[in-house]
Order: sequence, then C-alpha cells, then structure tokens
Amino acid sequence: MNSSSENSIPIEADAVIVGAGPVGLFQVFELGLLEIKAHVIDILPFVGGQCIELYPDKPIYDIPAVPVCTGVELTDNLMKQIEPFGPTFHLGQEVTQVNKREDGRFDVETSAGTRFISKTVFIAAGVGAFQPRTLKLNGIEQFEGSQLFYRVKDPEAFRGKNIVVCGGGDSALDWALSLVDVAESVVLLHRREEFRAAPASVSKMQALCEDFMMQSLTGQITGFETLDGKLAEIRVTGLDGVTRRVPLDCLLVFYGLSPKLGPIEHWGLQIDRRQIVVDTEKFETNIPGIFAVGDINTYPGKKKLILSGFHETALASFAAAPYVFPEKKIHLQYTTTSPKLHKILGVDTPVFD
Amino acid sequence: MNSSSENSIPIEADAVIVGAGPVGLFQVFELGLLEIKAHVIDILPFVGGQCIELYPDKPIYDIPAVPVCTGVELTDNLMKQIEPFGPTFHLGQEVTQVNKREDGRFDVETSAGTRFISKTVFIAAGVGAFQPRTLKLNGIEQFEGSQLFYRVKDPEAFRGKNIVVCGGGDSALDWALSLVDVAESVVLLHRREEFRAAPASVSKMQALCEDFMMQSLTGQITGFETLDGKLAEIRVTGLDGVTRRVPLDCLLVFYGLSPKLGPIEHWGLQIDRRQIVVDTEKFETNIPGIFAVGDINTYPGKKKLILSGFHETALASFAAAPYVFPEKKIHLQYTTTSPKLHKILGVDTPVFD
Repeated sequence: MNSSSENSIPIEADAVIVGAGPVGLFQVFELGLLEIKAHVIDILPFVGGQCIELYPDKPIYDIPAVPVCTGVELTDNLMKQIEPFGPTFHLGQEVTQVNKREDGRFDVETSAGTRFISKTVFIAAGVGAFQPRTLKLNGIEQFEGSQLFYRVKDPEAFRGKNIVVCGGGDSALDWALSLVDVAESVVLLHRREEFRAAPASVSKMQALCEDFMMQSLTGQITGFETLDGKLAEIRVTGLDGVTRRVPLDCLLVFYGLSPKLGPIEHWGLQIDRRQIVVDTEKFETNIPGIFAVGDINTYPGKKKLILSGFHETALASFAAAPYVFPEKKIHLQYTTTSPKLHKILGVDTPVFD
Repeated sequence: MNSSSENSIPIEADAVIVGAGPVGLFQVFELGLLEIKAHVIDILPFVGGQCIELYPDKPIYDIPAVPVCTGVELTDNLMKQIEPFGPTFHLGQEVTQVNKREDGRFDVETSAGTRFISKTVFIAAGVGAFQPRTLKLNGIEQFEGSQLFYRVKDPEAFRGKNIVVCGGGDSALDWALSLVDVAESVVLLHRREEFRAAPASVSKMQALCEDFMMQSLTGQITGFETLDGKLAEIRVTGLDGVTRRVPLDCLLVFYGLSPKLGPIEHWGLQIDRRQIVVDTEKFETNIPGIFAVGDINTYPGKKKLILSGFHETALASFAAAPYVFPEKKIHLQYTTTSPKLHKILGVDTPVFD
C-alpha cells in the first residue's frame, strides 16, 4: 500500500478492467466498439496474464479460427486488435479497494496508490492475482517485511547483510547473482540439485561459488532460531538427512507465483467456491455496475475456456453501456458492415455494390 | 425431394450439424475435442454459410485475437482447425425432417435423400437456409417447376424453348449467356438499366443483343396470361410506364437468395420470433438432444455475434456428451496441457520443465 494514495487525484473513468489477461484485453475491444474507454489494471508487470506467466511458448489450439498460437502470440494479436481504442494500462499493481459511491459510481484504489472514480468495473482477474508462494514454516510469517521477503523492491536494503536466497528458478538465481555485489554474503538454497533457471544463470552461479563469492546449499528449511526477537538463523535439512544451521540477517524466498483471489473477497461480491457469481444475460455480479468475465466467474454450465470469456465480455459490454451512457440507445452493429464501427476502428469502409 | 430417399440406408451418427457456417464448423471442433465425430449438412453447395454467401471479401474485425480477416479467411482457418476431426460434409442439401425415435435417437433426412440416425442434432443454421427470392405475382406460383424456375438443374430442359431470364446479378447474366446456345430465344429482363453482374458478362450480353442473338428488356413483370392452363406470356411494364406483352415458354427468375427458417419450423421446437429458444447452460432446445447454436438461437441477452456462437458450441458439446457416451465422465481438459487432446489434435505434446 502506497502512503501517497490518499493524496493522489482520482482518475475519472467510464470503465476499469481488473486483469490484463486475454479476456481483460478483449473486454477493452468490446467496450471500445461501444465507444467506452477503459483503464486496465494488473498485478503483473506485463499484459497477457496467465497466458504469459504460465505458458508463454506453449501452443493453444482452441481459439476459434486460430488453429494454433502461443500465449505470446495470442496476447500480441489482442494488443493489436485493441490498439484503436487506446486503453490505459496500470501494471504491477493490485486493485485493493472497490467501494460504491453515493453517486452510483465506484471508488477504485490500487496497491500503488492509483485511484479511480469509475462508472463500471469489470473483473477479469482469471484465477486470481498471481502472488508469491510463501514459505510454510510455523511462526516465520512474523518476519515478513522486516527480515523475510518475497519480492525485492530496493536491492540497497540488503547492502552489507548476510542473506539467504531460496528457490531454483530464474527469480531466485537472478536475485542471488545481482545481490552478490551488494550483500555481505549470499547463500543460495534450493531443495534439489537441478535448477529451473536459465542455464547461463546456473553456470554463472556455479562459477561464483567456485570463487567463494557465494555459496550454494541443497536442502529444505525445517526450522529457525531467534535472538532478541529477530530471526537469527535457519535450520536446513540436506538431502543427506543432516540438519545444518545457517545464520542470516535476511531471508529472500522465490518459490514462484500462485493465484489468489486476494482483496476481491472483501468487495461484497457473491462468491461461490472462489468464483464470482454472475448471470448469463449481462455477466453482472450481485453489485450492479460490477461485471465479472472469464475464469473468475461462475454460472450454470460455466467452463473455464478463453473463448467463453470472449463471449462474456461482449454481453457485459452491452449491459454496461446504460451505466456509461444513460441517455443513449445502444444497437448491435457489425464490424463488417457498420461505417460507424469502421470509424471507431480507424479503418476504411470498403465500397461494395 | 429425392425419391430414392425411402430406399437409402441411413448413416448411424453421433452428431449431425445442420449448417456449415462458421459456428457449425466450430461445433465440429468442440465436439471433436470430446471425441464426437460429426456429419455437417448445408443447403449451400459450399462451406462458410453467410460469411461466404454474403460477405466473402469484406473484412471482419471482431473475431477475438484476429484483428482482421475476410469471410473466406475465417472459413479457411476454421476448416484447417477442424481437419484433425475429419467431419463428413453433405452439401447442397437441406435437412427436411428431424424426428425423435423410440430409442431416443433422431431420424434425420435431407432433400437429397440422405438419411441419418443420430444421437444428437446441432442446429447451426444461422439466419436460416438461403433460398431463392421468389417472384411476387398473384397466381404465378402454380407454374413453379413446370414453366417457372428459380434454379437450373439441367440446361437441356430449355432446349428449343423461348425463355425469359429475370434479374441483374451474376446468376441471371450467367444463365442468360449460357442458354443462348440452347434455347430458341432468350430475353433478359431487369428492373433497371444498371447490372450488378460482372462487367465482362454485361459487355458480352450487350454484344449478343447487338447481334440479335438475345434481347435485353428493362422493366418489371406486372401480369401474365395463360392459354390452355399454361403460362403463355408475361406483361412487362417498362420505365416509360408502357406495358408490353412478352410471349414465352419458360420463366427463369434469379432475384438472389434470402434466408428462410424453412422446414425447421416443423420439428416441434420452441420458436420465438423466428429463433429457436435455448437455455444458457447447455444451449439445448425444448427437445432433449437437439441443440441450437449461433444466430438461429435466442436466450436472454442474446447478441448475434460469431464469437457468441463459438462459446455456445463449446457448452453444447459438453451437454451433448452424455447422449453420445452415457457411461463416460467428461472432464474439461485444456488444449495447451492435455496429452490426450494433443493426441486427438494430432500434435506433439511439447516437453517443458
């Protein structure tokens, strides 16, 4: 939570979309066809959501009329498709608060202190916000933010410290390597001998270990000791079954990301088994003006398919239009034939007999 | 109606899809993922439906993740996508009969006499079957099939006849030009002086008229005369307001195609304003085992969008599976990660860490 949030001037918006995965991106398109501009917020620092986070290079076969594409290609195509509508992205921040105002609009606030007053809110948060997997060790959570970290905001905070970095993926390796020059000492701790990280990073790490610039340990954290209320050392049980004591000042854990519903749980929405309940006419939640589309919603027959999310964004957009343009009658027009939509899309209306 | 229909051996099928437009084609895909093979029937002699019939070359902008494509490209991509599932197409024929059998399956019959016994039926007939626009003239319908024609099945039927061809599009011009060598005389009748047909055809027609090989008239049919119960002449009122008598043996009318719900009206389905009523969980009609997807169905919030039809095919497929595999539990699997779906799709399962 950014302390400047109370002072920032809120952005007045017609639509705020929570989530920049494929369904959130296509929500921009469907709103755009109805001339509704959107702000898009995502906790990840990039667009594409789980398509990029979980399977950027794996082929997807069930996007209609796209025999095969990767998560990256899907995202790129959607970004190209929504270009005419000029959405504003607010990435690397989580929507923390959504509150209905007396004027019927919503106060929306993010973890970075960005504030909106929006006529409509579209939750396209997929399986939830990707949040760091935490270290499961009784009592360790008391050190979170002081000596235990799941993200690095400012590497300088670790200057002169004795640190232990846990994990075997790119985040763990990258931070271990870059903190070698900052910290007093760096121990990399991974539960097995094989690393998921890029081979070049692993080689670099091994070279640094041979030069005694850092140390690599194999094992799992099975306990910790405190001294004067501070985390003083962890106990690491190795593959050989022996438990060793590792003294430290700071513990950095990079166990990957896992989706969490997070703050959404506290917005007053009707939730059924971690999904937001919507109707199938408007894909609106129990709070009028808040819609939920894609994997995060539930209704009879729901299947968590991207193509279902696409359909849901279309119907939600038509249902949202009266909140944005209370005076206007909204008619369905076709991108193939409507000169008005051609103007909005920035394309020429073809001349046919 | 083909008289051989009563004798043909019915094809036993898991699924019959009525309509080979984009939604009908994608229905093949979604059924295919569940290992359900489909037969696809369309009244048009080609796949693609109104995408091909009405706007083959016009750009479509609202297919998700496809920033722009034409009707032809959309159809080509869908055909490529469904290739692994080897659907059987039955084109140029209309489904005339659908009747529930005592064993719960359906007897399906087409205008060409093709017969099926199918466990499920998917109506993806769009705005209906494209049928020739008829000549609106009181009493003229009595000559349909004997002297009045909306299609040419066998040009030899017009050998030595005095024919009048009505219309200004490609069909009218093409048939007028090709029947010049067959018929005794050809008169081309069009309501205005400009033709929609290809300029080359129009030039060829004008050259033939100058050589007295055929005749071109401008005006509208405002009446007819009979002799001995046969159509003997039509009255044509020209742009000059003068009515002329044109004697003839046969009248060929090419006023274009217009969609009609057609025989579907008589299958016992609940219909609301020319659309088939379905639920939004299964997209099933009031007759269990018959589903309706795409522009032909209606439900609260329905928008006639191709992307909605795509979603509907997915949910309809899951709902249909128990009719086809009563014993099998159906689980949602993802094309990105499921080795089983990779096998079905005929692609390699990629190896990732």
